[in-house]
Amino acid sequence: MEHTWRCDIRVTDLGEFGIIARIVGRLPQFPAVLLGPGDDAAVLRAPDGRVVVTTDLLLEGRHFRRDWSSPDEIGRKAAAQNLSDVVAMGADPTAIFVGLGLPGDLPVGWLDGLTDGFRDECALVGASVAGGDIVRSEQIVLGVTALGDLGGRAPVTRSGARPGQVIALAGRLGHAAAGLALLLATGDAGPGSGLGSGSDGGGVLREPGAFLELVDAHRRPRPPYACGPAAAILGATAMLDVSDGLLQDLGHIASASGVRIVVEPGALPVPDVLAAAAAELGEDPLGWVLTGGEDHALVAAFPEEVSLPPEWKIIGRVTEGEGVQVTGRAEAEGGWDHYRE
Amino acid sequence: MEHTWRCDIRVTDLGEFGIIARIVGRLPQFPAVLLGPGDDAAVLRAPDGRVVVTTDLLLEGRHFRRDWSSPDEIGRKAAAQNLSDVVAMGADPTAIFVGLGLPGDLPVGWLDGLTDGFRDECALVGASVAGGDIVRSEQIVLGVTALGDLGGRAPVTRSGARPGQVIALAGRLGHAAAGLALLLATGDAGPGSGLGSGSDGGGVLREPGAFLELVDAHRRPRPPYACGPAAAILGATAMLDVSDGLLQDLGHIASASGVRIVVEPGALPVPDVLAAAAAELGEDPLGWVLTGGEDHALVAAFPEEVSLPPEWKIIGRVTEGEGVQVTGRAEAEGGWDHYRE
Repeated sequence: MEHTWRCDIRVTDLGEFGIIARIVGRLPQFPAVLLGPGDDAAVLRAPDGRVVVTTDLLLEGRHFRRDWSSPDEIGRKAAAQNLSDVVAMGADPTAIFVGLGLPGDLPVGWLDGLTDGFRDECALVGASVAGGDIVRSEQIVLGVTALGDLGGRAPVTRSGARPGQVIALAGRLGHAAAGLALLLATGDAGPGSGLGSGSDGGGVLREPGAFLELVDAHRRPRPPYACGPAAAILGATAMLDVSDGLLQDLGHIASASGVRIVVEPGALPVPDVLAAAAAELGEDPLGWVLTGGEDHALVAAFPEEVSLPPEWKIIGRVTEGEGVQVTGRAEAEGGWDHYRE
Repeated sequence: MEHTWRCDIRVTDLGEFGIIARIVGRLPQFPAVLLGPGDDAAVLRAPDGRVVVTTDLLLEGRHFRRDWSSPDEIGRKAAAQNLSDVVAMGADPTAIFVGLGLPGDLPVGWLDGLTDGFRDECALVGASVAGGDIVRSEQIVLGVTALGDLGGRAPVTRSGARPGQVIALAGRLGHAAAGLALLLATGDAGPGSGLGSGSDGGGVLREPGAFLELVDAHRRPRPPYACGPAAAILGATAMLDVSDGLLQDLGHIASASGVRIVVEPGALPVPDVLAAAAAELGEDPLGWVLTGGEDHALVAAFPEEVSLPPEWKIIGRVTEGEGVQVTGRAEAEGGWDHYRE
């Protein structure tokens, strides 16, 4: 059964406690969860004596579309963007909590897929889905909160970058933005379309299957989770995950640290598939790389003398001043001005 | 200026970062917050080495109405229902995180009121509003997560009630349900109506101002916060906050503990104002007390020999068996059956 969400049972048939029991039954709990779902609140281990917390709200139609992504992909993506915020502090994620607004006619199989997506993305970092809340809503609403443990390390904030340091990148840039552009150009791009299966979906793209990797990047980010805590151990002085676009997010580091960041565009990765998709759509691939969000790459400032492992690629440097400069581009040109704070 | 939300500035005029700056500017942080809003995630103290976590999703129209409650009341209520879950574990709340879905045309003054409501309710227990997320939405969506510290105590779950113990209550029952019934009966009951101001609102009630206390209870719960950690210290063996109605919530303790709970209706508080409102509307006040939610009273099981302070009133006892029995009422009668699990 390829599309398990084409099941006839709807969440309204289960009732609130039935829905909760069904969700909880799919969620194993790791040892950091001392008390899991089923009480007024959960109890987690916080061995460090401090806890890292972040929350995001995701709305159907604005942050995801059921006709563009499978429930598993939506659950993974909602978990990923929160887990990524935790690792960007240099912490190890321990658990997420999910507030779910669900339409009464939502197929139960779809909810199963969503639950599994949350669970499986969390499992990548050893975190549990340790609790949540269910309410009825017209459209799907996902309120996700992620927690993490610093393991004795100082949190890596946005404010520690200093002139003379290098800026390094772990993970992908521009892939999710390219995937979104491909989905928008293709029109119908549901799970049964060419972009999902690699077959001819009948869209405007002649060979959408060739760009499946990019569409997949939009549907399911692959944050370089392990690089976050590793960066803290390596001595990163500032870090964040790229969720709003590299330039805008580097602008946050520049502003919080009181420094200027200079990006070398030649050092930015522009893989062939990105260049090919840009050519197909008449776009600038570097635009996707510089301003696309949702891949949840990590960018960090490190002391110049640090020896970085291969996951990290140096893409720029920190200087005196303010704002973000892309070498070879005038600041007033190309629309980068509004990324400065 | 009585209605500060009749301000001409809309949230869309501020932009995302302007909104965040405005909210954060109204939120002092208590010392438990090591790193507050403005980074990928917040960092909180968790001195106990464990952290208590709960989350709720609240939707406009389903959980609150802008024409029935002020923004301050909505913020307070959303915070209260989460803080109450934390104290029901015997923990001290440390912080809440708020995911806000806001319409673009929402007046900024309304958002200020909501923010102040979150802040002021949290301040009652020494907790901070330590972070959040802003997204644009058609209707207001509130995703609230609360955290707490156990201070070295064992969490008080739902599963520790044992035959021979007593069931005790702290806080009010039925007030919020009566207030909601009054609002529904009155029709227009916005902030300028009789129910809000005590003047004649022109509704079906002849003297709505006489029941202002009950309407206020619907708009703003007053959970007995301090009684939660105090109960843990007194030796409570099971506890929860009444959010779905006393009988249903006692059913959760009975089910989780594998016991029967017998409630003495004569021991339940039915103040005059509740009786008068019930007479006015032709309702049974004991029905509100037994099945009304949203007052967030605490109910707990204690060893029989415990000496309870005056905040706690014994309302029943734990026996062998299962389910919840109200003395003097046949179980098959009165519609209580569906509260048994």
